[in-house]
Amino acid sequence: MMSILILNGPNLNLLGTRQPEVYGHATLADIEAMCREKAATLGIEAGFAQSNSEGRLVDLIHEARERHSGVVLNAGAYTHTSVALMDAITATQLPVVELHLSNIHAREEFRRHSYIAPVAIGQICGFGAAGYGLAIEALVGHLDGSGTT
Amino acid sequence: MMSILILNGPNLNLLGTRQPEVYGHATLADIEAMCREKAATLGIEAGFAQSNSEGRLVDLIHEARERHSGVVLNAGAYTHTSVALMDAITATQLPVVELHLSNIHAREEFRRHSYIAPVAIGQICGFGAAGYGLAIEALVGHLDGSGTT
Amino acid sequence: MMSILILNGPNLNLLGTRQPEVYGHATLADIEAMCREKAATLGIEAGFAQSNSEGRLVDLIHEARERHSGVVLNAGAYTHTSVALMDAITATQLPVVELHLSNIHAREEFRRHSYIAPVAIGQICGFGAAGYGLAIEALVGHLDGSGTT
Amino acid sequence: MMSILILNGPNLNLLGTRQPEVYGHATLADIEAMCREKAATLGIEAGFAQSNSEGRLVDLIHEARERHSGVVLNAGAYTHTSVALMDAITATQLPVVELHLSNIHAREEFRRHSYIAPVAIGQICGFGAAGYGLAIEALVGHLDGSGTT
Amino acid sequence: MMSILILNGPNLNLLGTRQPEVYGHATLADIEAMCREKAATLGIEAGFAQSNSEGRLVDLIHEARERHSGVVLNAGAYTHTSVALMDAITATQLPVVELHLSNIHAREEFRRHSYIAPVAIGQICGFGAAGYGLAIEALVGHLDGSGTT
Amino acid sequence: MMSILILNGPNLNLLGTRQPEVYGHATLADIEAMCREKAATLGIEAGFAQSNSEGRLVDLIHEARERHSGVVLNAGAYTHTSVALMDAITATQLPVVELHLSNIHAREEFRRHSYIAPVAIGQICGFGAAGYGLAIEALVGHLDGSGTT
Amino acid sequence: MMSILILNGPNLNLLGTRQPEVYGHATLADIEAMCREKAATLGIEAGFAQSNSEGRLVDLIHEARERHSGVVLNAGAYTHTSVALMDAITATQLPVVELHLSNIHAREEFRRHSYIAPVAIGQICGFGAAGYGLAIEALVGHLDGSGTT
Amino acid sequence: MMSILILNGPNLNLLGTRQPEVYGHATLADIEAMCREKAATLGIEAGFAQSNSEGRLVDLIHEARERHSGVVLNAGAYTHTSVALMDAITATQLPVVELHLSNIHAREEFRRHSYIAPVAIGQICGFGAAGYGLAIEALVGHLDGSGTT
Amino acid sequence: MMSILILNGPNLNLLGTRQPEVYGHATLADIEAMCREKAATLGIEAGFAQSNSEGRLVDLIHEARERHSGVVLNAGAYTHTSVALMDAITATQLPVVELHLSNIHAREEFRRHSYIAPVAIGQICGFGAAGYGLAIEALVGHLDGSGTT
Amino acid sequence: MMSILILNGPNLNLLGTRQPEVYGHATLADIEAMCREKAATLGIEAGFAQSNSEGRLVDLIHEARERHSGVVLNAGAYTHTSVALMDAITATQLPVVELHLSNIHAREEFRRHSYIAPVAIGQICGFGAAGYGLAIEALVGHLDGSGTT
Amino acid sequence: MMSILILNGPNLNLLGTRQPEVYGHATLADIEAMCREKAATLGIEAGFAQSNSEGRLVDLIHEARERHSGVVLNAGAYTHTSVALMDAITATQLPVVELHLSNIHAREEFRRHSYIAPVAIGQICGFGAAGYGLAIEALVGHLDGSGTT
Amino acid sequence: MMSILILNGPNLNLLGTRQPEVYGHATLADIEAMCREKAATLGIEAGFAQSNSEGRLVDLIHEARERHSGVVLNAGAYTHTSVALMDAITATQLPVVELHLSNIHAREEFRRHSYIAPVAIGQICGFGAAGYGLAIEALVGHLDGSGTT
Repeated sequence: MMSILILNGPNLNLLGTRQPEVYGHATLADIEAMCREKAATLGIEAGFAQSNSEGRLVDLIHEARERHSGVVLNAGAYTHTSVALMDAITATQLPVVELHLSNIHAREEFRRHSYIAPVAIGQICGFGAAGYGLAIEALVGHLDGSGTT
Repeated sequence: MMSILILNGPNLNLLGTRQPEVYGHATLADIEAMCREKAATLGIEAGFAQSNSEGRLVDLIHEARERHSGVVLNAGAYTHTSVALMDAITATQLPVVELHLSNIHAREEFRRHSYIAPVAIGQICGFGAAGYGLAIEALVGHLDGSGTT
Repeated sequence: MMSILILNGPNLNLLGTRQPEVYGHATLADIEAMCREKAATLGIEAGFAQSNSEGRLVDLIHEARERHSGVVLNAGAYTHTSVALMDAITATQLPVVELHLSNIHAREEFRRHSYIAPVAIGQICGFGAAGYGLAIEALVGHLDGSGTT
Repeated sequence: MMSILILNGPNLNLLGTRQPEVYGHATLADIEAMCREKAATLGIEAGFAQSNSEGRLVDLIHEARERHSGVVLNAGAYTHTSVALMDAITATQLPVVELHLSNIHAREEFRRHSYIAPVAIGQICGFGAAGYGLAIEALVGHLDGSGTT
Repeated sequence: MMSILILNGPNLNLLGTRQPEVYGHATLADIEAMCREKAATLGIEAGFAQSNSEGRLVDLIHEARERHSGVVLNAGAYTHTSVALMDAITATQLPVVELHLSNIHAREEFRRHSYIAPVAIGQICGFGAAGYGLAIEALVGHLDGSGTT
Repeated sequence: MMSILILNGPNLNLLGTRQPEVYGHATLADIEAMCREKAATLGIEAGFAQSNSEGRLVDLIHEARERHSGVVLNAGAYTHTSVALMDAITATQLPVVELHLSNIHAREEFRRHSYIAPVAIGQICGFGAAGYGLAIEALVGHLDGSGTT
Repeated sequence: MMSILILNGPNLNLLGTRQPEVYGHATLADIEAMCREKAATLGIEAGFAQSNSEGRLVDLIHEARERHSGVVLNAGAYTHTSVALMDAITATQLPVVELHLSNIHAREEFRRHSYIAPVAIGQICGFGAAGYGLAIEALVGHLDGSGTT
Repeated sequence: MMSILILNGPNLNLLGTRQPEVYGHATLADIEAMCREKAATLGIEAGFAQSNSEGRLVDLIHEARERHSGVVLNAGAYTHTSVALMDAITATQLPVVELHLSNIHAREEFRRHSYIAPVAIGQICGFGAAGYGLAIEALVGHLDGSGTT
Repeated sequence: MMSILILNGPNLNLLGTRQPEVYGHATLADIEAMCREKAATLGIEAGFAQSNSEGRLVDLIHEARERHSGVVLNAGAYTHTSVALMDAITATQLPVVELHLSNIHAREEFRRHSYIAPVAIGQICGFGAAGYGLAIEALVGHLDGSGTT
Repeated sequence: MMSILILNGPNLNLLGTRQPEVYGHATLADIEAMCREKAATLGIEAGFAQSNSEGRLVDLIHEARERHSGVVLNAGAYTHTSVALMDAITATQLPVVELHLSNIHAREEFRRHSYIAPVAIGQICGFGAAGYGLAIEALVGHLDGSGTT
Repeated sequence: MMSILILNGPNLNLLGTRQPEVYGHATLADIEAMCREKAATLGIEAGFAQSNSEGRLVDLIHEARERHSGVVLNAGAYTHTSVALMDAITATQLPVVELHLSNIHAREEFRRHSYIAPVAIGQICGFGAAGYGLAIEALVGHLDGSGTT
Repeated sequence: MMSILILNGPNLNLLGTRQPEVYGHATLADIEAMCREKAATLGIEAGFAQSNSEGRLVDLIHEARERHSGVVLNAGAYTHTSVALMDAITATQLPVVELHLSNIHAREEFRRHSYIAPVAIGQICGFGAAGYGLAIEALVGHLDGSGTT
């Protein structure tokens, strides 16, 4: 059975517990449940992880090579600063869908630049928790070879 | 019944007839069919239009206010150069999902900047024709108020 | 009798019908009436036109050579992106007063730059619909040779 | 009776006495007379001052709070370099119309930037001495609440 | 018989009727005649078109695929602002010779950048109307495979 | 009899002997022959020189004043770095046609800038060895006063 | 009893053991003692931590929400590179006083920019170990509501 | 007895009389009183001055050499524009603590740069009127040689 | 008898009294004496003034029109920030020789730019007090018409 | 016996197991063996470590002070983003030779900048695994004092 | 027998005769001897040349094609300014090891950029005269195919 | 007897023979004579040289060490592009006075930057041929130790 990893970066562990008016009431656990449900619907397995550490995220991408066919990556703040994550994706050659809760192109200038984007298949941003479902669909479509019709 | 507009910018009329190895074999007519099918599945109506003219695209966004609740906008090259489209979106206050076939963040530097992004709900790029389906889903999710769960 | 053209760019056709708290209740038709009244007071004729198309605006400036002695130009979004309008003004050598409803220098960085400004007599911005009256006065003063006292 | 201040910055005291072919024959005294006449026509009072000193101009804006309802400010060269004047306007919250004799957007690059603009109602430039009359009209229109019609 | 298109952008319709001391006395009709004569000499056919509209120019390049083997493109002001024209050339894969009447590298900074150049065979600029003849020769040489000796 | 100089900069001496698949099989000697033939056809004389030294190229331009009416200059790499060549052209006031084998606007960013261009009549690039013929034609056209029709 | 956290970033563990002529003889332990003394004087509790890991610092800020009312943050080198710390502060909404031993505005250009500053109450830098006392005072003043007197 | 100068730049004379919700109710006179009290507590004398003139502030720094051992400088808007103040500090070699009421690093981009900072001991900003007390403490600590512990 | 003004900007009043190892032992009074001696040798009169105020320096340039034929201007820090001084020179059309004690091109980046330079005859910098003598000579040579031999 | 540390940053643990055609077949273990052999030849000891965590790398540099006389540092992606590593080198004052497998100056623009370089003895890049041997030689040469002959 | 060229650029002829405390006592002749010894040890031949002329260095690289298999190039100052040298390397397709005595990345900003680097195998800098030995080793390793192990 | 070198860069050999209305009628020979006369007056010897070659100018500075105590350097166009000349001055440690006929700060942007300036004593520009006399005076003053009075 095909397996993908949903990988989450810094501060995403706080989701839902603060500023629900901004980020919604969904906690990261809720999102994990939603993702697993979506995966089940699509007939695949889904790993789910979060870390605040750039180095640990690099480790998790390395390890993903053994068990997963692709990654949905919400790298959070490291999106804008981490060449190490960029290189990890290139080194493992795993297909990656870049995901953001907020529309990063409508915020501060420095959030418009992503080190992940040039090595990802594509980017989905601005749709909140619902973006996870879209990203899983996009990744599975890509892995099925149906992504480019 | 809720209705949305799928609006396509310059050069997208050529889809599928040239460089199929790059952009796939789907023509714009195929994509229109696919979108209508997706809309039917979601129980909504979908308008579909394309123009190579910036001014005509502005007109179409203005007209959309009367008949549609939101827009999936693949503005093509005008994404990077058109303040007029940006202002049209702001003026009509229609919810817009920004869409691109290719991963614009992995191409020339000037394609990384979008005038649409700051006034859109979110952006989906890099998934080829499959992105249309994702964008319709994202827009309908947003209009249903389920987008930010 | 001296005649001038009041020429309006993209999205200005929506004036007054949306966000009246921002742009006021005056529609473009109200502004046209106001302009004609002002023109009558000053003893001149005034043409009035609007288009969302850059190419059509270039055409209108070309045509103005035959009938008008000068232009009040609110180029809207094309102010910031259109070299074609800049060149049209240079080519026709018509005196142009640049006009904006909002104070473009107090908005996004990209709105601070105008391709119209270097080939215009002067610029008036920030005074809403009242700016049209001021611009007509300024243009007529210039054409009368009284503009530089 | 409503009163406004017409405030002039560095080098404007030399107006009319040198390079009349460029700046016209109107001296600053002539302009003062013209402004007073315009004010009388509009049924308001007008103060008129000039200084070559940035600090003195800040003082004059501070003092204006006591006696005037708004300011027409031709800050001359300080337009481009004075954060202090910008802060003075913000601190006093006086409505300010920014004025320039020449079209500052058609000159050296550094003259395109104005520290005054972001805190002013609007900007008028390029119409020579005639601009004073337009600026007074614009300011009075604004104070009368008719400016945004 | 081989056929090429000579395509002209905004404001070129005014050629010869204004500022003859700058742009010469040749009207666009004169240039068309000259181009047809040159084409006849080289034993090819030549289409000739002009538009002030970016969208129409995109259409014309699309249509050229059916009838022409290559394009001489004087995109005028759109040279510096139109990603849509750049993409139209890439999409149709037509060989394009970029042409300018004036030496664009000796004018304002923004005219030094061309969106056409990276997708064109080469560029000819600065030789006035005579440049059309040179460009036709260059294009035909390229199509004959003699261009790179 | 009118005489022109065809002047070639650094590394052009290697033409044809290496990477023929890129630069063609024409050696600099072949090009010289081609230029002389073209000159004969046009009824003029042509000098031909090459140097890898910036200083020597400056000398050659100085000397050209005595014997030639204009210069076709392929300055190679010095195009992008030599203010000395720019000043030599200005100082001698010789009409110069700037020439490049490759389309310099489609290569690295630093090759887009030319110190020669602002002091040249015009630029021809991207047409390989065939560009020499076009440049001679353009220069002679200019010297004949027929260049601007 | 009110409690605050004094949090220290990379390389601060080496304080006092090397280059005492530059950074003084105070070790991080000495500074901790000083801080606790200051806290005692002010009648509050103080936590104290240091880490060389960006991810661990994010964790520590997250954990601070449970036990502390505010943070004195000397983020060291991460000040200039960590969007993750910036987001952690925003996410936890803890009041933060930014602290630096050296005057970061008098060093290399890249040290002038702080990702912490836009989400901090204020910044204190350049006063060496004494800055810790000032920062605690500033934070407590802020928490007491006396900070803006 | 040691004496220090507290020197205040443009617009600070307006403190407390306008926008108390932003800047607090403390007038500059209140702050002066607070500073004198703080000075008394620390057993030192404190001079206190304000000017809206850059030149006068330079004079006051020059004069401070005679009577004061150091300066707390809130240069207001001149912080960002005055090389003259920077040079005055260097020339007199007086130790200076740079002070700002607001967090200048969280405002407009141009306020992030300070000409004072590279020649000051350190910077304190963001703590409102309370910053004066902190700055006096920091300066006295520095003068006592205890600042770098 | 020809008269020139030697005008000195901010902080130059401190010359010789501090850091003699850097700026030498010459006070501004010594320099004034040296200038008067030089003037006497050249058979001209010399005025001499200094101010720390930008506005006062503008006044002094204005006044110079009445009594002097040219100005040696050491504008100190205002060199890099004062558009007002630049405009004063343009307005009075007085020939100005720009002078600096230090080699401003070998110091901080911001000192490399001068607002005075584009409106001055020329610049002399780096020769300390001796530069005054050279500047007087250069100005007198220019006024005598011998400056361009 | 002299000892040095060979320290490796993120993603280097994957060496040799993927893309051998790019990075060669040598695994990090092979490189470690090669380094130990080289060290033995030179009569020194060599430590060898790798981490994907920036914080851990900082720790390892701190610890190196106790046991090693110098460091060969291949910081991988952190080269371009880590001020923390730069500060760790400065703080420990260990001599560091900067090493890269690939020629970082021939890749993306952002890889041209190194935070390590300004605090390293020198840089070696582009020689693949062989670079480790060169770097060890260079470091030992430096420690022996023979490096600057 | 394999032969390589060690090529030295401007000012390297002065080595050892001035500032020995900075650049060491080794003259260029000493370095040449050292290089020949190293070459002998490695069983290869080594040519050695120096020139202050950019054009001559281009010539020497051209000539190297006939006799040498690779080049160690210390291009000195031309590293940062010579596109001609870059093109010479590309044209001859000789493998080049870029060498610098000093650590160019720890000096002025403009020395960080190298036109040689993008066309070289790799770069060695900062190790003084000892770098020549390392560079020869690196080049020979590359030519032996052992360089990428 | 003290000896100095007056060294002239590219295109200065053309002085006086072209565009006398711009550069005056003085040829380089006239200037040489003038310099020798000035030298005689000051009781020193003067060498005089010119070259269009950057490499030759480097050679001449190297050779100057043997015979001259300082250099007046008019490097012409190489001022703006030659790091090699900059390094030659540093390497020889000869005192250099930078000279330009025109006011380089009032011309194109790229002429404002000088690689010579940071390693020169000072700069004189804008005074035409008369600048040579001033520069000799300045250099001799510097060598006499009277330059910094």
